[in-house]
Amino acid sequence: MSMDVLIKKIIEKKNPSVIGLDPRPEYIPPHIMKKHVSEKGETLEAAADAYFDFNRGLIDALWEIVPAVKPQSAFYELLGPSGVETFRRTVAYAKSKGLYVIGDIKRNDIGSTAQAYSEAYLGAVKIGDTLYKAFDCDSVTVSAYLGSDGIKPFLDVCKREEKTLFALVKTSNKSSGELQDLTAGKDRIYELVGKMLEDLSKDTIGEYGYSLCGAVVGATFPNELVRLRGLLKNTFFLVPGYGAQGGSAADVAGAFDERGLGAVVNSSRGVICAWTKTGRGGADYMEAAAREALKMKDDIIRYCN
Amino acid sequence: MSMDVLIKKIIEKKNPSVIGLDPRPEYIPPHIMKKHVSEKGETLEAAADAYFDFNRGLIDALWEIVPAVKPQSAFYELLGPSGVETFRRTVAYAKSKGLYVIGDIKRNDIGSTAQAYSEAYLGAVKIGDTLYKAFDCDSVTVSAYLGSDGIKPFLDVCKREEKTLFALVKTSNKSSGELQDLTAGKDRIYELVGKMLEDLSKDTIGEYGYSLCGAVVGATFPNELVRLRGLLKNTFFLVPGYGAQGGSAADVAGAFDERGLGAVVNSSRGVICAWTKTGRGGADYMEAAAREALKMKDDIIRYCN
Repeated sequence: MSMDVLIKKIIEKKNPSVIGLDPRPEYIPPHIMKKHVSEKGETLEAAADAYFDFNRGLIDALWEIVPAVKPQSAFYELLGPSGVETFRRTVAYAKSKGLYVIGDIKRNDIGSTAQAYSEAYLGAVKIGDTLYKAFDCDSVTVSAYLGSDGIKPFLDVCKREEKTLFALVKTSNKSSGELQDLTAGKDRIYELVGKMLEDLSKDTIGEYGYSLCGAVVGATFPNELVRLRGLLKNTFFLVPGYGAQGGSAADVAGAFDERGLGAVVNSSRGVICAWTKTGRGGADYMEAAAREALKMKDDIIRYCN
Repeated sequence: MSMDVLIKKIIEKKNPSVIGLDPRPEYIPPHIMKKHVSEKGETLEAAADAYFDFNRGLIDALWEIVPAVKPQSAFYELLGPSGVETFRRTVAYAKSKGLYVIGDIKRNDIGSTAQAYSEAYLGAVKIGDTLYKAFDCDSVTVSAYLGSDGIKPFLDVCKREEKTLFALVKTSNKSSGELQDLTAGKDRIYELVGKMLEDLSKDTIGEYGYSLCGAVVGATFPNELVRLRGLLKNTFFLVPGYGAQGGSAADVAGAFDERGLGAVVNSSRGVICAWTKTGRGGADYMEAAAREALKMKDDIIRYCN
């Protein structure tokens, strides 16, 4: 009933990073796409099968290096129901390798609808007398614009299932300040959202001092990262924006506490597309991803002491 | 490149309402669920097939009465990929009956990820040389917490495909004020979000004066509804919260402009679960839904002149 499961995997791998499994047609090594297109034609099903093959190879290459992966739901939904099936299979395969899986779904709803999302991605649904877990992620991302009505249903399922969530607080994109940086009273909106989340989850703090409700805080705003680390002592951070989006290891340094814990840093393209820079046409996509993931680990852990 | 397609359907049906297709196991008449469970067992697939049967019956009962339906994605995702396939089939069937389909997905992301969501739900994806439309809704709901980076990719696809979106501005839930009602400068957050959206879409105003970017504004806050109607002259409203959530027709009156246009009011449970109140065990679910939809129409149009 806290962030401990993820934190223990981070400690075990000595690596506070998470790899985003964000497939797009152009990210798939041509030999993988070709194989599936020759079987099923230029179809959504062929692309979905190719995505799964690609992900399985990445997971095989990465599971001993990183503690966690984060599939981004949008890229799977783009292929329709077949893509969603690949999302499901990817979560299951990553979990079978001991990886912590954060479903990057950024869902956002209230009451019974938020409950449906949380049961879909973290919990279970009953059909007659039979229980099914539709996606069974370890964690998900959500938005808090709707207030606590949108968060509490997720908290309830997380408590029951020993899972976690990460709510959007200060995001990594250029326009994130348009709303998040506005000042209400004497606080910024993103600070108020962060405090609301910390308050809602204060009864779920684990042995490392972090609750089950984390916050998404972008690497591209290092000052805000430091400010939030000081403000939200019991909130674990998921930090996107490292690498391709422009954040450096020095930029994410402020996300960690004095023990080097407190955050997990995401990279997607830098790792999963590493093969596009080796000139070997994708034959080496697994080795290339592993090499980049190790480089990222070494880059980041310098700032975790 | 505006809200005209929806508005014309509203005028044609003389009915500014939309029915939420939000299936849950307990909303399905027992004879429908039983039929599919006897075929496929107590499985997610059986439930997904039952949801589709239920929706098809509702659409057959409603398409001559209402201009639009709004399937809530969460309830379909709860059944995993099979449920997502039912969402897809429901959208396609409703469109084949001439209904305007608002995919209630409340997605929320930036850059290439927001682009993937918008292509998934409104646009198309290319596999090799072949174009596919994964879900092909007419409109979707989104969140604006991430700022304009999260909205622009949807606007681009909407312009290209003659489609629309509705962004969360002032939601119908009790805790919506925690963040949305905060005051920054002299404006409320929800007003600032509304103004940002109106500004972003000001080049897409159609013959009725409304842009392609609508706003979700709850029926449960009638004063805010009036305030926003005055403030956002070119923004069409999607109004949840009527009926089961407590909003009355008088409460939604303020959403309409002087021509009786400017908003579409949603009801879900009140219509799709009407059969649970007739004591006929669901045999009459289509007639019951049609009767409630007509009652809702008569209730609302009193306030549209």
